[in-house]
Amino acid sequence: RRTRPMRETKLVPRVREVMETKVVCITEDEPITEAALKLLRGETNHLPILDGDHRLVGIVTTYDVTKAVARPGDRLCVRDIMTRKVVRTTPEEAVDIAAQKLERHNISALPVVDPQNRVIGMLTALNLGKLLGGRWKA
Amino acid sequence: RRTRPMRETKLVPRVREVMETKVVCITEDEPITEAALKLLRGETNHLPILDGDHRLVGIVTTYDVTKAVARPGDRLCVRDIMTRKVVRTTPEEAVDIAAQKLERHNISALPVVDPQNRVIGMLTALNLGKLLGGRWKA
Ligand SMILES: C[S@@+](CC[C@H](N)C(=O)[O-])C[C@H]1O[C@@H](n2cnc3c(N)ncnc32)[C@H](O)[C@@H]1O
Repeated sequence: RRTRPMRETKLVPRVREVMETKVVCITEDEPITEAALKLLRGETNHLPILDGDHRLVGIVTTYDVTKAVARPGDRLCVRDIMTRKVVRTTPEEAVDIAAQKLERHNISALPVVDPQNRVIGMLTALNLGKLLGGRWKA
Repeated sequence: RRTRPMRETKLVPRVREVMETKVVCITEDEPITEAALKLLRGETNHLPILDGDHRLVGIVTTYDVTKAVARPGDRLCVRDIMTRKVVRTTPEEAVDIAAQKLERHNISALPVVDPQNRVIGMLTALNLGKLLGGRWKA
């Protein structure tokens, strides 16, 4: 199901206008403890994972680090807990389409990529929630 | 700073209309591993912490569990990583006021409490983001 609501295109904010541009990233061969430290230092729940060419190859979240606590065993590296199929957005995408992606996949952030699949920002449910602050102003 | 935007009161959705009512909770004497399991089973990032009378006394998130991974040491129980001062909302609060609370405190969920401080729901940035889906519809 893919609904594209009809709308006044020029009135819809674009992802570029609300995304965060300071993004902390990690690589898949780093230890989980390093991911945990970066998540805390960056005060974020989401770290995009980049390959050697700075291209997006996965995402790791505080939710995934929690897996390592719940079921210890031999998970040691980011690659043991990361999600490889990343739902993403672009700077030009309309924010309501991005909001639908979050809803459909039950996730709270989308890496924002350029045409070379390099991460140029992060869009979170919190960024979208902020847009609501002005919605019912008189 | 507490801004209450002027608005058509009857048009503003209330927290009750968008909150989640299935809430997984925990107590502060449970081990962190149990919190991790509940977070994963509930597919959530937030667990409200209840006392013996089912009243809200704190909150623990995947972010807090990540702290235990980043800096191990002797953190064992939920009480060692929980946040005690919980920003909260009520079912009758307007969603834009709740959105402002999330923004001001840089958090992504608010427990919804009744007058006896018992948790009756959870409001997340994702619930608010969903409201945006319909915003620019023609
Ligand atoms: C399904 S969510 C459930 C928890 C919660 N709703 C949240 O937003 O984090 C948790 C999983 O989603 C994954 N995830 C988060 N953002 C993602 C994205 N943009 N694309 C694909 N998976 C993502 C994480 O790696 C994690 O394993």
